[in-house]
Order: sequence, then C-alpha cells, then structure tokens
Amino acid sequence: MDFALDDTTTRLRGQLLDFMAERVYPAETLFEEQARTGEPWTTPSVVERLAADARRRGLWNIFLPGEHGAGLTNLQYAPLAEITGRSPSLAPVALNCAAPDTGNMELLAQFGTEEQRTRWLEPLLDGRIRSAFAMTEPDVASSDATNIATRMERDGDEYVINGRKWFVTGAMNPRCEILVVLGRTDPQAPRHRQHSQILVPRDTPGVTIRRGMRTFGYDDGDHGGHAEIDFVDVRVPVGNLIGAAGDGFAIAQARLGPGRVHHCMRLIGMAERALELMCRRVWSRQAFGGPLADQGVIQDWVAESRVRIEQCRLLVLKAAWLMDTVGNQQAHTEIQAIKIAVPQAVEWIVDKAIQAHGAAGVSQDSPLARIWARARTIRLADGPDEVHRRSLARRELRRHLPVPS
Amino acid sequence: MDFALDDTTTRLRGQLLDFMAERVYPAETLFEEQARTGEPWTTPSVVERLAADARRRGLWNIFLPGEHGAGLTNLQYAPLAEITGRSPSLAPVALNCAAPDTGNMELLAQFGTEEQRTRWLEPLLDGRIRSAFAMTEPDVASSDATNIATRMERDGDEYVINGRKWFVTGAMNPRCEILVVLGRTDPQAPRHRQHSQILVPRDTPGVTIRRGMRTFGYDDGDHGGHAEIDFVDVRVPVGNLIGAAGDGFAIAQARLGPGRVHHCMRLIGMAERALELMCRRVWSRQAFGGPLADQGVIQDWVAESRVRIEQCRLLVLKAAWLMDTVGNQQAHTEIQAIKIAVPQAVEWIVDKAIQAHGAAGVSQDSPLARIWARARTIRLADGPDEVHRRSLARRELRRHLPVPS
Amino acid sequence: MDFALDDTTTRLRGQLLDFMAERVYPAETLFEEQARTGEPWTTPSVVERLAADARRRGLWNIFLPGEHGAGLTNLQYAPLAEITGRSPSLAPVALNCAAPDTGNMELLAQFGTEEQRTRWLEPLLDGRIRSAFAMTEPDVASSDATNIATRMERDGDEYVINGRKWFVTGAMNPRCEILVVLGRTDPQAPRHRQHSQILVPRDTPGVTIRRGMRTFGYDDGDHGGHAEIDFVDVRVPVGNLIGAAGDGFAIAQARLGPGRVHHCMRLIGMAERALELMCRRVWSRQAFGGPLADQGVIQDWVAESRVRIEQCRLLVLKAAWLMDTVGNQQAHTEIQAIKIAVPQAVEWIVDKAIQAHGAAGVSQDSPLARIWARARTIRLADGPDEVHRRSLARRELRRHLPVPS
Amino acid sequence: MDFALDDTTTRLRGQLLDFMAERVYPAETLFEEQARTGEPWTTPSVVERLAADARRRGLWNIFLPGEHGAGLTNLQYAPLAEITGRSPSLAPVALNCAAPDTGNMELLAQFGTEEQRTRWLEPLLDGRIRSAFAMTEPDVASSDATNIATRMERDGDEYVINGRKWFVTGAMNPRCEILVVLGRTDPQAPRHRQHSQILVPRDTPGVTIRRGMRTFGYDDGDHGGHAEIDFVDVRVPVGNLIGAAGDGFAIAQARLGPGRVHHCMRLIGMAERALELMCRRVWSRQAFGGPLADQGVIQDWVAESRVRIEQCRLLVLKAAWLMDTVGNQQAHTEIQAIKIAVPQAVEWIVDKAIQAHGAAGVSQDSPLARIWARARTIRLADGPDEVHRRSLARRELRRHLPVPS
Repeated sequence: MDFALDDTTTRLRGQLLDFMAERVYPAETLFEEQARTGEPWTTPSVVERLAADARRRGLWNIFLPGEHGAGLTNLQYAPLAEITGRSPSLAPVALNCAAPDTGNMELLAQFGTEEQRTRWLEPLLDGRIRSAFAMTEPDVASSDATNIATRMERDGDEYVINGRKWFVTGAMNPRCEILVVLGRTDPQAPRHRQHSQILVPRDTPGVTIRRGMRTFGYDDGDHGGHAEIDFVDVRVPVGNLIGAAGDGFAIAQARLGPGRVHHCMRLIGMAERALELMCRRVWSRQAFGGPLADQGVIQDWVAESRVRIEQCRLLVLKAAWLMDTVGNQQAHTEIQAIKIAVPQAVEWIVDKAIQAHGAAGVSQDSPLARIWARARTIRLADGPDEVHRRSLARRELRRHLPVPS
Repeated sequence: MDFALDDTTTRLRGQLLDFMAERVYPAETLFEEQARTGEPWTTPSVVERLAADARRRGLWNIFLPGEHGAGLTNLQYAPLAEITGRSPSLAPVALNCAAPDTGNMELLAQFGTEEQRTRWLEPLLDGRIRSAFAMTEPDVASSDATNIATRMERDGDEYVINGRKWFVTGAMNPRCEILVVLGRTDPQAPRHRQHSQILVPRDTPGVTIRRGMRTFGYDDGDHGGHAEIDFVDVRVPVGNLIGAAGDGFAIAQARLGPGRVHHCMRLIGMAERALELMCRRVWSRQAFGGPLADQGVIQDWVAESRVRIEQCRLLVLKAAWLMDTVGNQQAHTEIQAIKIAVPQAVEWIVDKAIQAHGAAGVSQDSPLARIWARARTIRLADGPDEVHRRSLARRELRRHLPVPS
Repeated sequence: MDFALDDTTTRLRGQLLDFMAERVYPAETLFEEQARTGEPWTTPSVVERLAADARRRGLWNIFLPGEHGAGLTNLQYAPLAEITGRSPSLAPVALNCAAPDTGNMELLAQFGTEEQRTRWLEPLLDGRIRSAFAMTEPDVASSDATNIATRMERDGDEYVINGRKWFVTGAMNPRCEILVVLGRTDPQAPRHRQHSQILVPRDTPGVTIRRGMRTFGYDDGDHGGHAEIDFVDVRVPVGNLIGAAGDGFAIAQARLGPGRVHHCMRLIGMAERALELMCRRVWSRQAFGGPLADQGVIQDWVAESRVRIEQCRLLVLKAAWLMDTVGNQQAHTEIQAIKIAVPQAVEWIVDKAIQAHGAAGVSQDSPLARIWARARTIRLADGPDEVHRRSLARRELRRHLPVPS
Repeated sequence: MDFALDDTTTRLRGQLLDFMAERVYPAETLFEEQARTGEPWTTPSVVERLAADARRRGLWNIFLPGEHGAGLTNLQYAPLAEITGRSPSLAPVALNCAAPDTGNMELLAQFGTEEQRTRWLEPLLDGRIRSAFAMTEPDVASSDATNIATRMERDGDEYVINGRKWFVTGAMNPRCEILVVLGRTDPQAPRHRQHSQILVPRDTPGVTIRRGMRTFGYDDGDHGGHAEIDFVDVRVPVGNLIGAAGDGFAIAQARLGPGRVHHCMRLIGMAERALELMCRRVWSRQAFGGPLADQGVIQDWVAESRVRIEQCRLLVLKAAWLMDTVGNQQAHTEIQAIKIAVPQAVEWIVDKAIQAHGAAGVSQDSPLARIWARARTIRLADGPDEVHRRSLARRELRRHLPVPS
C-alpha cells in the first residue's frame, strides 16, 4: 500500500497548479462578467484564450485514457480533476475536460464506429463542437432507470424517436451539435436490454429545445444550461446507434465509473476552495472582540471539513484504483459509495463556508452558493442517493444471506 | 394550559383558508408568469386584484396590533401568518402582511411621530407605497450588530448619512419610497446606545441603488429584490429620526419579536406546503414495483417532517404567547429559540421534499428550491444562527454560575 | 390557546419541588449506596421513608386519574412526571408513580373486575406489592407486536400459558407479586383480536425467573431489573383475564398513551438534570485559559439542549391535552410523535453532558451514563422508533392519497 | 498510489483470519462465562490456551516494530489490528497486542534503559506480567493535558509521588505489576517541559488501588478494569524515569500515534463485526410480511455503515503510512483526524446494529452494547474529540493567516 502520487501525476499536477495560478484564477472575474453580459447560453470568450494556453502546456484532453487522449489511468487523472474543481465553471472547460463532453468522448472512443469517431469524436477532442447527454425524463421517476420511456422505433434504416427529455446539460449552447440519447428500442426485451443509446444531431428535424431548466435559480448558462427537449418523429440512421440495440445500460455502466470519479473529485476541489474561502473569511471579520477564526464553533466547522475532505478523497482514489485494477464491474460498491458519500459531505462543507460568509455567502459575490447548488443537484443527478444506498445495501446484505437448511 | 385556538383566530383562519383556496392558489401560475415576463423588480399585477378582494374580506393588514390594524395579539396572528406562508411569494403581499413592510409599519405605529405616521404609515397601511429596512453592511460582520458602521452625523437640523448597506429587501421595487436606515449617530456613547434608526426617502439625493443582490441565483424580483445601496452625504431632517438618538437597538428589539414570529410561522407554512407536495409526489411516481410512497426511507422523511413541524409550531406559538403575556424582553430566550430551531428544521424538510421530486425539485417547475433558498437565507439573516445560539447559551449558563465563596 | 399551568398543577408542582429539594436529592447518595450494597434486586430501604413523607404531603399516587387516584388529567400530571424524572431512580418510586406499576394500576382501575381490583389494585395503590408487564419475547421481532407468540390456551376454567418473555421490568424484585402477561388466545381470530392480557401471580407453578437482563451493563436492580421468564404449562383461572379474550391490543392501546406521556416527561426531567449538570461542570473546569463554559462548542451544546427540551416538552403537553380532550384514539399521531422525538433528543443532550464531564461522565460517579442508557433503551422499548415512524408516515401519506379517476 | 496489501501483511492476515476462525470465535462464549464467574478483575483462563497457540503460529507480539517484535510497520500492522478488533475482548490479549500493554512495551522498547527493559519489557513481551498507564486525574480537565497535577518531587535518588489518578486501565488485574505514571516534575519549567513519565511498581508502598471505575455499567473486569489509584508519598528511584525529566509530553507524543492507529483499527474491526451481526439479524427476523432486511430504513443503515467503514479505514491506513514515511510529527493532522472521525462513525454504526437487534442489542446476549460503550468512551479518552478538533482547526486556519501589511 502506498499513498504517494506517481511521477506522471506529480508532474502534471505541478503543471496544472501553475496553470490555475497563472491563468485560471486571474480570469475568473472576467469569466463571470462575460457570462453575465454576453450572449445567453454561450461559453464566455475568455475560455478560448485559456484553452489555447492549455493545449500549449500539454493539459488538453488529459481526462481521456487510451490512444486518443493523455492515456492516464483513472487514478492518475483523479487528482487532476480535483484541481480543476477548484474553479469549476472555468477550469474544466478550459482543458476540454468538462462534463458531459468527457463522458461522450469516452463513449465514442470506446464504443464508437470509425465513422462516428471521425464525425463526432474528432471535433469534440478538438473543442470545435460540444455535446450533451439526454437521459432524464420529466414524466418518470429517474430513481429507476428502467422507467425511461422515450421510444426509439426502427423503421427501415432509421430509428424514429419520440419522447421528452430534460436536464440535458450543455444542450442550450449554440455550439452543442450532437446529443447522445437514451431510449427504449425494444419494450419486449428483458428489463435491462430494452434500452439503447443513439447519436442525434441537435439540428435534426423534430428536435425542439423548449427551455433551459434552472437549478436553485441558476441557469448555468455559462456551460450551456440544462435543456428540456422534445423529440417528435425524429429520424436518425441506424448507424447512429452506439454499440448494439439493447446495449443502452451496459454502455451507460461503462461511462458511469469514470464520470463519478470526475464529478466527485471536482466536488472535492470545490470543497477545498470553499474551505480556503472560509478560513480566509474568518480571519478577516471581527466579532465579539476578535476574528471569527477564534470562535470555537467556526473551528469545529474547519476541523470537520478537513476530516471529511480527506475521507472523501481517499474513498474516490480507492474507487479509481479499483476501476484501473479490477474493472468497473468489480468496483461497483466503491463507485456507488463515492456517489453516496461525496456530494453530501461537500454540501455540508460548503454550507458552513456560506454561513461563515453571512449574506455574501448566498449572493453572487462569492462562488459558494453556486457551488452549493451543484453539490446539492448531484445528490439527485444520475439517480438520487437513495437508489445507490439501496443497491449497495442489498449487495452487502446478500453476503449474509442465511444458508437454507 | 389549552392548545385550542380562540374564536377570533378560528374565524379568521377559516376566512383566510377560503381566500387561499379561492384566490391565492389559483393565481400562483399567473403570478409566476407575470414575475418572469413583467418589468423587473415590480410586484406582478395580479396581486392588485387579490389585494382588493382581501380588503373586502377583512383580511387586509391583519398583522398589525393596536388601533391601526386588526388588533390581533401575536398568538392570534401567528396561525394566520403560517397560512400565508403556504404561498409565500403571493399571499403575504396580497394581504399587505409582507416583510419588511410589516416591521416598518409596526415601528411607525409604535414609535412614529404624528407627522411620520401621516406621511409614511398611512400610505403603507393603504398599500400605496412600499418600504425597506437597511441594516446589513457588506463591510462588517453582521453577527455582531454593534459593528454597524454607517455614519449619521448631525449637522444643524439635519443628519448627514454616509455608508453602504446591502440586502435591503424590497428596495429595488420602484414603489418603494421610504427606507428605514440603522446607523451610528454617536461613536462615543455606550456600545448599545451608539446607533439610531432614521427615515430616508429613497429619492433623497446621495442615495444610489447599485444593484440587486441574489440569493442562490434568485433575484426575488417579485417582491422588490435585495438592494445594495450607497449613501453619500445623504441629508434628512432630524425629524426623521425614529424615537430618540441612540434608541436604534432598543427599537430594533421591539421590532424583532413579532418579525421573528411572522418569519417562523411563514416558514412553517412553507414546510407544510413542502410536505404536502412531497406526499403527493411520492404517490404519483413508481419505482421498483410500487409508488415511492411505499419506500421506507421516504416514509421516514414524512414522519420526521411531521414531527419537526409540530415541534416548531408549538415553540413559535409559545414564544408568541409569552410576548403577549410577559413582553418581548421576558420572551428573549424563546424568541432566540425559534430563530435557531425553525429555519433549520424547515430547511431539512424542504430538502427532503426536493429529493423526493428528483430534478423537478431543484428546478423552476416547483416552488421547493425557492422555498429552500428562503429558509437557508434566514439561517443567516438577522444575525446568523450561531450568534443566537451563543447568546441563548450564555443566558442559560449564567443561571448556573458558581456561587463565589 | 394558553401556555400557563392551571392552579392545581401549579400548587402540586410547588409541593413536589419542595419534596425533591427537601427529601429526594439529599437521599440520592444513600439510595445509590444501598442499591450497591443491599440485597440484589430489592428497592433500597431509604425509599420507604420518602414514601411515607410523600403520603403525608399528598403526593402519593398522583399519577392515577379517576376516583382511585389524585384525579389529575394527563395534562396536569405531565409536568409533575417531568419533575420526578430529575431523580429517575428514586423520585417516581417514592411517589408510587413508577413504571410499570403505574400502567398496571391504570389497567386494573380501568378494566379490572371488582375482584381483580381488590386482590391486586389495592395493594399496588398502597405500595405493599409491585407488579410487572410481560410483553417482549426473545424469539420474535418486537417491532411487529402481532408477532407475539406466547400461547394461552383455554382448558376449562383455566388458561394454560406457555412461552418465554424477557425484559419484564421489575419482575426480579422479590416484592413483585403479579405479572400482566400478553399472549395469544386465539390464533384463528383476525390479526388484532388474537391476543389477550392476563394476570399471572409470580409464584404460580411453571413460572420460572431465569435471569436479569442487562442494558448497557446495568442490571437496574434498584427497581427490580428486567427479568427473563419462562412460562411452562402455567395455569391461571379465566377470571384473571383483563377485559375479554381478544382485547389484548385494544387494552394495550389504552395503556399506551399515558405511559408514553409519563416516560417522555420523565425523560425531559432527566434532560433538564443533565443540562444542569453540564452547566455546572463547565463552570468548574478550566482549559486553555478559562472555564469550559467559555468554549463556543460547549455553548452550542447548551443552546441546542435548551431548544430541544422546550420543543419536546411542548410536544408532550400537546399530546396530553389531546388525550384529555379528544381521546387517545384521536391523539394517535401525537402519541407516536413523542415516542419518536423525545428519546432521541434526550439521548443527544445527555451525550453532550457526558462529553462535558470527560471520564466522570461515563462512570458511576455521575448519573449521566445511566440516564443515557435509559433514554437509549426507550428508543427500542415499546416498539423501536422506526415502527412508529413508519406508522405515523403511512397515516400522513394516506391524507394525500391520489383520488382514483 | 497503490491500495493493495503487501505480501507480508497478506500472509499474516491469512494466518490471523485462520486463528480467529479456528480459535478465537469458538472461545468467545467460554471467555464470557469465565469472565462472569471467575475471580474479579482477572483475565479468563481460556486466554492462556489461545496465547500458547498464537505463539506457535507466529502471531505473538506482532504489534511491536523493531528488533523486539515482529518488526512490522504501522501500515503493515494496521489491517491486523483491525481483525483483532472483531473480537475485542479476547483476540488482542490472546496475541499480547492489547492496550495499554502495547503502548507501554513500545515506550520501553524505544526509550527504556537497558535495566528497565530487562526488568519490565521482557516479562511484558513474554506475557508474564501486565502493565498500566496512569494519566487521567479526577480533579482536572483532561481536555488540557498540561493540567495534570500529580506531583513528582525529587528527593535525593528518589522521586516522591503524590496525587490521584483514575481510569488506569488494566490496573485492577492482580497480574498488573508496573504502572507508567505521568506527573509534574518541574512546575517552573516551560509548559510542555514540566511533566515526566516514571515507572512505579504497583506494590510500592503508598500506592492504593481504591476502586474500579465503570463505563456505562461495565467494569471491564476481563481486561483488568479501570482503577482509581491514590499515590501518597510513593518513592521510586530516579532510575525509573523514562527518558529525561521534562520529557513526559514528548514521550507521550511518540506513544500516541501508534496507539491511535491501533485503537482506531480495532474500532473498525468492531464496526465490521457489528455490521455483520446487523445483516444476519435482519434476515432472521420477520415484520410486516417479510424479513427486516427488506425494510428501506434498515438498508439505509447498512449502506451508510459500509460507506463509513471504508472511509474510516482508508483514513487510518493513510495516517499509518504517513507515520511510517514522514514520521509522527508530520502526521499530526492525520493522527488527530482518525481520533475525530473513527470513534463517532463506529458509535453510529453500532447504534444502528443495536437498534436492528431490539432489546437483545442492549443486553448481555450480544456484544453490541459493550462495543458501543467502548466506542463512546474513546470519544473522550485520550482527550475529548473537541480538543483534537480545536487543535486540528487551528493548524488549518494558520495556513490561511492574513499576511500582515
């Protein structure tokens, strides 16, 4: 057992920390301003300049394993993802490491046909276009993914898609050109073989972007919002299927593990940022004869935050290591565990940082309220925590099934 | 001891429930739409129609004790305030019972001069104008109110005001005509006699509304937002002082008790609404072979919500009763207790209701996320919870001070 | 609505407080010593002296409503029960107000035949004998009371009882002469009509006291322990049945409400005692340059304790009031609510008081650890909290059942 | 980074698991019976047989690093300590790896003179005698260790010791021959140089064992209890000093790290045992038409338990690794973090296991209540959690100290 980072990770970590200090943090204010005043739903233009620099520094697409990307393992990328989480609106996109593009690129790299890769993966890797993943539906309980009801019916060489999706993150961005859509291709198949994933160009007739969904008042316009989309008799060629018909959940599983690790590590980065902001704040404000930093309750928050961050980070790194060594399938419990543990811990930490900031903490003058909204939303995105808890528990319980006599 | 409502309260409660059912709930969708599409920072026009009806029904200004209002005690008004909280953006304003106008009207009714009452109280009672209360400052820790630094210097028959305030709720509304400002009139006086409250017409030269502050992404434009305001050499006549110079905190205390009761009871109304929405939702969604209502974890949330609501309501009613019978001063512990207990309980309940709604819960399609943001913000408004906990604890501890030998 | 105690309660409260101050607290050390050194399982003899004084002062049997007792309502007795909880091992028994005798006396007063009352109620009311209630069984999940399996088979004029009970509180005491036993008289009846309660003299052949059960290391010998009892072909006359065959649960319900109120109010008294001990302790100990009372985290515990106590007390009083005014049946939700809310709140408070005491807190030198064990045990006695939460939730949810279309 | 155990650890782990399965678990019932019926305060004799077998298997003294022991690193021993925690009363002592002997042996191995080692370390390593560590005092707040007041005054070639200690774990055992006592040798020295540690044979004149302290009703007699001890003019030669005069805290620090790791890993073993018992229990009990294992709330406990255990284990292993690689001094934050995180997590888990067991859970029929009491006691042993939180927070805060301008 060894808790030290390897050389590759250490080197990239150093480069990334430099990039954060030299380019990202100084650009945050401008990014916020451009997001507030620019075209709705578009990426602020300052990102372009940072992206160019990230390419030069060799930090572009570092998320992607295998030949198409930097070739890092999950365990190697995880500490880097954490660092990008410290500036969550700006850093990931500046490195082309932002969700949901990362998941879509992984999907195409792993399961895409030659043609799909040429047509969509290349421009995504190059940052010329953006993509979205359409899974959640307004009309069914997302806690049970087999509920997903969007119909995809084969008609000759095409699939005809009908249904409504929402919270399609990134899809409001005008540069978003391609949607990965999960729907039901065969209602008669066994429960986990009914669904498929298919590529739908956003400009396909019948695709209507209805509106941007908000989360706690935020439209998240700077990274393309969360669209509600109608699919009415949308036709795409069968060649747009990713993998085979019925592979929808199998493919989703493959995507799931790295996505969770990325999300959780970024959340940990946000928590580190929040803790840092809290510490600075409590030195700067006086009450009852001294800085807030002298208050026992504040100290309690700081200690608890530090301890929870350490515990969460180790849990995610272990999950990443397992994925690398025994595969996502065998790391199932750990992949669920990080989804259960990390968002709620980070939510708690950010809540305390907000409280230490007083009114500023809930306002647009600090990143805390927005970070909080992200952490909170992740508690129900991708299946509410409760589903993962139930599933993890049932696996644990099965290990102790009474032996039939 | 008797837990039954008296006849007056029972009668008004019935009338108010009718008004909610017949006018308020049916108007919520239109209110939301007008808020979204109308002039920024203005009250949606549907409110006017409801207000007219509320006057006819005798539900106008029911919050106000004494001759100028309905003459209800705190204990009588509390259950009514709860009901208005079930539709928190619409019902209170439709009854002219919305903060911060209520507090300002109470202040003027109790401490205002004849002239102040004629000039400001009458139009406020009539709903012709709106008001705001400027206390919090961006530059000092609001956890210790004696930090408040806005200068009010006497110059002949005038006070000259310099400082910056923010989170001045309601002040973005164009119909807001008067600000009650808390500032320091005498830096040499004893610590709790340095501050005063003064009336500042919003159009006084030197008053600049800089921007609306957001809370978790919401601008709360429908009830006049939360302004950041600069005061630069603002001159108002000494006759605008409320009470005497140095009375700032004494007067604030008087305002505090009823304000807390109103806030807390409205929060309880929001919690009841959230619980109701949660119950309905979990019947309507299926997962794992039955409605979510069959899930043990959901049932646990429902039970815990019901129990917490009951405990909070009783605590607030007891505080109101104490204020009525022994006075705000003697009810100090209870007034702090409700500020400590209620927002956090309601926040917990609304969080669970959100979780039961999945993505819809955090979105603009349900009132839950906005209600949550209110509850969360109240945990730090009017002094963060921690200050009240500290103060309550010190009083409790003093009861057990060791007897000096 | 009125939160003031009525005159009778105020008067008795004053007398009881005097009795506590003059007789109970001063006797605690002796009680502990006698319990440690005396005959196992017997009531320390100091109780006799206090009991005699309690009779003289008119504080004997104050728990019992109706003609046989003091005739107080639940709402009147509740604040007195709280006070006895401040010295939970000594005060209730000194007033003949200790569980499980109280419940058994209520049962006999309400449902007993003339003969049963003469034979058992009179000596119990006089404090000459003690009693126990045998419900829980080691072999079935007590969370579902219909599981109770002890067989009671009619054979002519007798019932023949076979089964095993445990946690029969009080039954180790040599003066315990009568057991109220819950068992199944008719396995064919509807689910809630299968069980009955019957009086079994402890010296009936076939009744074997096997051992005293411990709770967290305590044998609770000073109030008769918690017996495990075997019933093997135990024969009692049919006239020992309380109520009719099949009435077991109906009668248990009647007993339940007052029992819960007593338990919960005593727990609140324990919490008040714990809070007082905590406050005194933190003044007496120095760390880091001042008394522990100056530490913010300690203050946080004190504040939270005070707030939780107030909320719990109001909830129990409301439940008592409901039982008095609309009956136990209509107070079902509230009776469950207090079982859910109070033990866990008190457990939390006592835990903090322990922590403030350091090692002394968990030791025999303070009453805290023992009080904690009581509160913890009540979380699962009389059905684990989870059962009550589930039941309360289902009732709440049913109010929002979707209307069938 | 690598989360796999090394070969040595894997091998020893296998051997230890065999020993647990073949010898320890089967002996638990007999151990309990001997503890209940045997001589007070003595180790049940079954331990001897197991110890003999442990020696044969090469599992004796595996805790001890360096030449005198198995030479394992902290990281290597930690997973083994966890396994011993699964049978916490029996396994550690059977391997001669039980506290406080482990800490005392480490102390002597690291700081003892040749003579001290011959006289005390050898028989301890051989299991012929037992030892105790006397630190906590009834009269001062142990939260601030500099409070410790026992006087050790030099008088020629002797130290004269006066003071009272309590919770001297193990010291009631008749085979306990040596006490390590922490006291103040120089009240004039700087605050952290006033104290020293000295070896005091238990049979030295002036040493009086007053009584065994209890924790939640348990006397922990099977491992020698927790003694209260008077020291009145106790004289020991200066050669009994461990290290130099004034080294008391420096030496205590050295002892601290490994002790924490051992305690925390054993607690994690207890949590695993509790989780296993909970899982088995909920399969075996039926309620509401199925096993308790089907209840959502139970599943929630199981999932949360598993996640917390994983997080705790990783945190402790990381701390152990840091101690091995950068030293205890540099691992200060992590050593505090495990003390903060682990006992409270384990307490939570065991509490849920108890609840799932109903009355059996709090009784002597399951190990859970006793395990709970251990976890709870550790929250205040060796400094209450709050002290460690405060200290950790202050270090974190200092990293963000404002730069003086």
